[in-house]
Amino acid sequence: MNEADGLARRVADTLLQREGTGPAWGVTIDDAREGYALVRMHVRDDMLNGHRIAHGGMIFALADTAFAYACNSRNESAVAQSATISFLAAAQPGDTLIAEAREVSRVGRSGVYAVSIRAGDGRAIAEFTGLSRTIGGAIIN
Amino acid sequence: MNEADGLARRVADTLLQREGTGPAWGVTIDDAREGYALVRMHVRDDMLNGHRIAHGGMIFALADTAFAYACNSRNESAVAQSATISFLAAAQPGDTLIAEAREVSRVGRSGVYAVSIRAGDGRAIAEFTGLSRTIGGAIIN
Amino acid sequence: MNEADGLARRVADTLLQREGTGPAWGVTIDDAREGYALVRMHVRDDMLNGHRIAHGGMIFALADTAFAYACNSRNESAVAQSATISFLAAAQPGDTLIAEAREVSRVGRSGVYAVSIRAGDGRAIAEFTGLSRTIGGAIIN
Amino acid sequence: MNEADGLARRVADTLLQREGTGPAWGVTIDDAREGYALVRMHVRDDMLNGHRIAHGGMIFALADTAFAYACNSRNESAVAQSATISFLAAAQPGDTLIAEAREVSRVGRSGVYAVSIRAGDGRAIAEFTGLSRTIGGAIIN
Repeated sequence: MNEADGLARRVADTLLQREGTGPAWGVTIDDAREGYALVRMHVRDDMLNGHRIAHGGMIFALADTAFAYACNSRNESAVAQSATISFLAAAQPGDTLIAEAREVSRVGRSGVYAVSIRAGDGRAIAEFTGLSRTIGGAIIN
Repeated sequence: MNEADGLARRVADTLLQREGTGPAWGVTIDDAREGYALVRMHVRDDMLNGHRIAHGGMIFALADTAFAYACNSRNESAVAQSATISFLAAAQPGDTLIAEAREVSRVGRSGVYAVSIRAGDGRAIAEFTGLSRTIGGAIIN
Repeated sequence: MNEADGLARRVADTLLQREGTGPAWGVTIDDAREGYALVRMHVRDDMLNGHRIAHGGMIFALADTAFAYACNSRNESAVAQSATISFLAAAQPGDTLIAEAREVSRVGRSGVYAVSIRAGDGRAIAEFTGLSRTIGGAIIN
Repeated sequence: MNEADGLARRVADTLLQREGTGPAWGVTIDDAREGYALVRMHVRDDMLNGHRIAHGGMIFALADTAFAYACNSRNESAVAQSATISFLAAAQPGDTLIAEAREVSRVGRSGVYAVSIRAGDGRAIAEFTGLSRTIGGAIIN
C-alpha cells in the first residue's frame, strides 16, 4: 500500500470511529484509498420505509458516507455542497448494500465524486453524485 | 379540514407507523395535507458525522421522509426517482430539524417536490428537490 | 418600484446586453426584481432535438438564464455551482417557454434558486434548482 | 466495429442530422458506441454569458447532447427524466468543449449516464449526470 492510500485508510477509520452514524448503522469499510472508498451496511428493519423496502434516506446516507471518506481521503477537511441520487431498484430487508465512491474530478477546492450503490448480489440499487468543497484543516494529526 | 387533507394526514400517519425509519429517528408529523408535509426530528449523537455535526445523510433522510408523505398524500403509491440536496449550514447536536415539503408540479405520473430543511430557530440548513413517480396501488384502504 | 428591485432590473438588462446567448436565443425579460427573474423565449427550429421537440439543453439554458439574473440581482457577481433539472413534458416548436426564478434560501455566499419552466399556455415543462456562489465584484457601477 | 457499436453510430449520426441544435451549435461526433458518445463543440461568441465565459446552459446542452446519443444508442427511444451538472471551471471563447458520456447503470427502463466535460487541453470544466427513461419506438428503421 502506498503512503497516500495508507493515509486515506487511516482517515476513513478515524471518521468512522468519530461519527455517530456509521456505528449506529453497522457500516464497515472494505477499502479506502486516495479518492476512493468502499463501504457496506446490512438493511435492517429500522431502515425500512412504509413500503417495507430500504428507505431512500438510508441508501443516500450510506452513499454519502462513502463520499465523505473519499473526499476527505487526503486528510484535508472537505464538506458536501450538494448531492444527487437516482434510485434504480428496491433493496429488501436483509440485503447488504455496498457503496463504492470514486473521484471523478478535482479542481481547486471543488471535487466531484460518483458513488454506485449495489446489493450484495451485484444488482444496481442507486447512483449518487456528490460535489465537495475543501475547507481546510486536517482530520488526523 | 377538507377531505383531501384528511386523507393525506391518514396516509402520512400510516406510513410513519409502517416504516422502520421514522420511529427509529424520532420523526413526528406536525402537518400533512394534500401535496404537503411538515415533519421534525431532533439531532441525536447517533446522527452526527465525523466532524460532530448532523450527518448529511440524516438531513437528506428527514427531507426524503417529508417528500414521501407529500407525494403519497393522495393515497396513490409513489416512489422517489431522483433527488438533489444542497447543504447550506451545519446542524448541531440537540438542534431540531424541520422539513417542509411542498408540491411544485405534477404532470402525469411525475411530480416535483421542494423540501426546505430548517433548524428550530429558523436557520436554513438545506434545500432538497425530489422527483416522484406514481406507481399505483393505495397506501390505506 | 423600490431601489433593490430597480437595481435588479438594471443588472438583468446589463447581463442580457453583455451576453452572447440571450440575444442569440431571443430571450426577453418580463420582470426582474431582487432575487427574482421572469424571462421568455420562443422555441425555434434550431432549438429542437432529434425527436423534434425542444432540446432539454435549451430548456435548461433558459432556466439557467433566469437563475443567473436572480442570483446576480443584488449586483454582486455570483456563479452557478451546480444545477438540477427534471423534465415533465415536451415543448413543441412554436411554443413560448417562460422561466420564473425565485430565491429559496441564501446563507453566506451560497444561494438556492428554484426555476419553474412553463409553456405559454401554463403547461409545466420542467423544474430546475440551482446552487449559486457569490464571488464578489459588481456587475454594474 | 461490432454490430451494436455500428448501430449506435448510425443512431447518433441520425439524431444529429434530425435535430436543430447540433448543427446550429457546430457539434461534431468523435465517437459513438453502445452506451457511449464523445462529442465536441467550439465556444463561440453567441455562447458566452454576461461574464464573457461559456454560458452554463451551453455546457449543459453539449453534455445533454452526448447523453442523448448514449442513452438512445441501442435504437430504442429514450428521454431525459432529470439531470444534474456541477460546474468546476470556466470555459473561454475559442475553447473546444469535449463531452464524453458513459453508461453507468441500466435497470429496466431507467438508465444513469455520467458525462464529463473537458476543454481541448484536458481541463475539467463540468460533470453531468443524467437519468433516462426508455419510452420505446426506434430512432432508425
